[in-house]
Amino acid sequence: MAGKEVAKQSLKVVMFLGSARENRVCTRVSKFVHEQLTRSGHDVTVIDPLEMDLPVLRQSMMFVKDWTTLPETMVKANETLVNSDTIVVISPEYNHSIPPALSNLIDHFPISSYKYKVSGIVCYSPGPYGGMRAAMQLRCLLSEIGTISVPHIFGIPHVTKALDEDGKPLNEHMESGARKLITQLGWYSEALKAKKEKDGVPS
Amino acid sequence: MAGKEVAKQSLKVVMFLGSARENRVCTRVSKFVHEQLTRSGHDVTVIDPLEMDLPVLRQSMMFVKDWTTLPETMVKANETLVNSDTIVVISPEYNHSIPPALSNLIDHFPISSYKYKVSGIVCYSPGPYGGMRAAMQLRCLLSEIGTISVPHIFGIPHVTKALDEDGKPLNEHMESGARKLITQLGWYSEALKAKKEKDGVPS
Amino acid sequence: MAGKEVAKQSLKVVMFLGSARENRVCTRVSKFVHEQLTRSGHDVTVIDPLEMDLPVLRQSMMFVKDWTTLPETMVKANETLVNSDTIVVISPEYNHSIPPALSNLIDHFPISSYKYKVSGIVCYSPGPYGGMRAAMQLRCLLSEIGTISVPHIFGIPHVTKALDEDGKPLNEHMESGARKLITQLGWYSEALKAKKEKDGVPS
Amino acid sequence: MAGKEVAKQSLKVVMFLGSARENRVCTRVSKFVHEQLTRSGHDVTVIDPLEMDLPVLRQSMMFVKDWTTLPETMVKANETLVNSDTIVVISPEYNHSIPPALSNLIDHFPISSYKYKVSGIVCYSPGPYGGMRAAMQLRCLLSEIGTISVPHIFGIPHVTKALDEDGKPLNEHMESGARKLITQLGWYSEALKAKKEKDGVPS
Repeated sequence: MAGKEVAKQSLKVVMFLGSARENRVCTRVSKFVHEQLTRSGHDVTVIDPLEMDLPVLRQSMMFVKDWTTLPETMVKANETLVNSDTIVVISPEYNHSIPPALSNLIDHFPISSYKYKVSGIVCYSPGPYGGMRAAMQLRCLLSEIGTISVPHIFGIPHVTKALDEDGKPLNEHMESGARKLITQLGWYSEALKAKKEKDGVPS
Repeated sequence: MAGKEVAKQSLKVVMFLGSARENRVCTRVSKFVHEQLTRSGHDVTVIDPLEMDLPVLRQSMMFVKDWTTLPETMVKANETLVNSDTIVVISPEYNHSIPPALSNLIDHFPISSYKYKVSGIVCYSPGPYGGMRAAMQLRCLLSEIGTISVPHIFGIPHVTKALDEDGKPLNEHMESGARKLITQLGWYSEALKAKKEKDGVPS
Repeated sequence: MAGKEVAKQSLKVVMFLGSARENRVCTRVSKFVHEQLTRSGHDVTVIDPLEMDLPVLRQSMMFVKDWTTLPETMVKANETLVNSDTIVVISPEYNHSIPPALSNLIDHFPISSYKYKVSGIVCYSPGPYGGMRAAMQLRCLLSEIGTISVPHIFGIPHVTKALDEDGKPLNEHMESGARKLITQLGWYSEALKAKKEKDGVPS
Repeated sequence: MAGKEVAKQSLKVVMFLGSARENRVCTRVSKFVHEQLTRSGHDVTVIDPLEMDLPVLRQSMMFVKDWTTLPETMVKANETLVNSDTIVVISPEYNHSIPPALSNLIDHFPISSYKYKVSGIVCYSPGPYGGMRAAMQLRCLLSEIGTISVPHIFGIPHVTKALDEDGKPLNEHMESGARKLITQLGWYSEALKAKKEKDGVPS
């Protein structure tokens, strides 16, 4: 049954950037993944902690009664998130854990905006292990908010040797790694989307 | 759209027991979950490390060329697994980590038997934290083998006060916790099942 | 050899608060732990993300050449940290992971300020599992920055029923849990302190 | 104070092998680390799941009243463990988690045999991430049994290209990685050892 020819759907992907650090390598990684997702026919919107410029979490949107008091960018970003099919996180590790810029961004939005969606983890590091330590924490975080991560993690070791500043791949593993992730994102996202359209979600 | 009336499907559930310890509490937990799954119309097959009596992993089935050399119980258990929709693990913690009886059982079967399925984590402990430490490791393990765990984890603290020896619940949290897990297992399993029937799985 | 009578040392403890959320429960937990540490003869300094009011991490102090450009509170907090023997984190979970307020605080200070120290994890949740999911991530984070956490984790389930708003304990587990943590903090901190005084640290 | 000249002590190291798999790569990794530890003047005893040939855990030694009913190898291995200063685990990942051969071995011995000791994690994988996913779980497991892992993890990616079958290093990272781990093991082990000799351990 595998490999049956089907028209692939275009997914609405929200891409969370995981760094607000100066001179962040995150830019090149997100450029590369953005390009790969677009080439696969998907529609990508970036949510960037540097642009959002949120404070360290005082209160999730979930607990704010009057959303007119919130920054418009936040309300708009949440709308995009609600309407999305799929979430992709582009994550470095800070001290080999989830960067606060990323968890802070994720935690600001209501859990209901994430539920019954699919996520993909892209992680990277300047050194040999590709950010896998942070990825293990992200698996848990993403599951807990109801946007389960697909099995394949796309980890990029020695990231500055793997991608140039414009996000152009410098070795042959980049495109195959991205493709594997994108294939899984497509399959799982289509599965959940069809289910939602047919039956809604559990109350 | 939530709550739309639909005929729920009967799922083929494989339940892995996570303990081979003498006088294991696992029995009462599995009885309870088995009963709850059956009542919800699902079909449950138990894979029990005590019955399987496997050695500590020398080689996954995946790497064995001639399966006639394997114990028949293992080949049969794998067949059940292949034909299942959903996996439920009933896990204590040993030293607050995944019990070796459970990881040893899981690791014996080929990864292809797990892929594109859904899993549920039931964990428990005699003390206050309900086995959540092992559950965090199980989330990762189950994702890595391609059977993603649904968001809700059903953790049972003070297990010997929560269930009697026959698996009868001793407080009101047991049935609601199980129901939440089973609802999610149903929703996600049906989603992936429909997708597999329609399009197969990625090659 | 266990239990030999010794004069216990007074430790310089830095306590990181893990929440900047409005109406944070963190306050009552930190009051309680502060009181317990003080009673044991230790000297506690609190580093509070609400008071520090740091932005989401742009750059660790480690990479800032001219520290006169930094807020004085940060430089002073780092001095306290450098001179401390022991770190205690008081952590809720946000989406069952490390709260960004805590990781953001930790990540701002240079790794060298943490190295060869000992840490203790106090976690809590309004629900049944006491914050153990975040604690598993904290174990890793704290190890990676070189301030290894002692074996005992002091997890507080149903926190609002366990401590009142002034941090007074409402059940008998609170003091015994704190005592176990503080005993281990004392033992390990004294061990590393003596070693540092005798031999310094590896270059 | 760093770098002060001191006579380094010889440590009694127990090395747990993490694989019982046929044709295990574990052998070459353990040979290499054994050689590096010996060169540093330490005394190494190997506990090998293949030699121990334990069943999947039915009962920890901790709960066995009459140890004359136990295999002599197990009682002897426990004695070695009790008398050791330091534990080193040599771990592959199975399904990117702790191999059952390793957790099964660890779980057989009483917790009291581990407490107030120091451990080191050596992990490896045939692929790019060096076994870091299993290492994150090992950090937690080792902390929970009271033998805290030192900050540096020695992870070996592409292991079959990094070490030959006799455990000879094939690149320059091997010796520096091992040295960093061994230096930390020495420092922390000496710290805890001196403390135990002076004050015993908490009752």
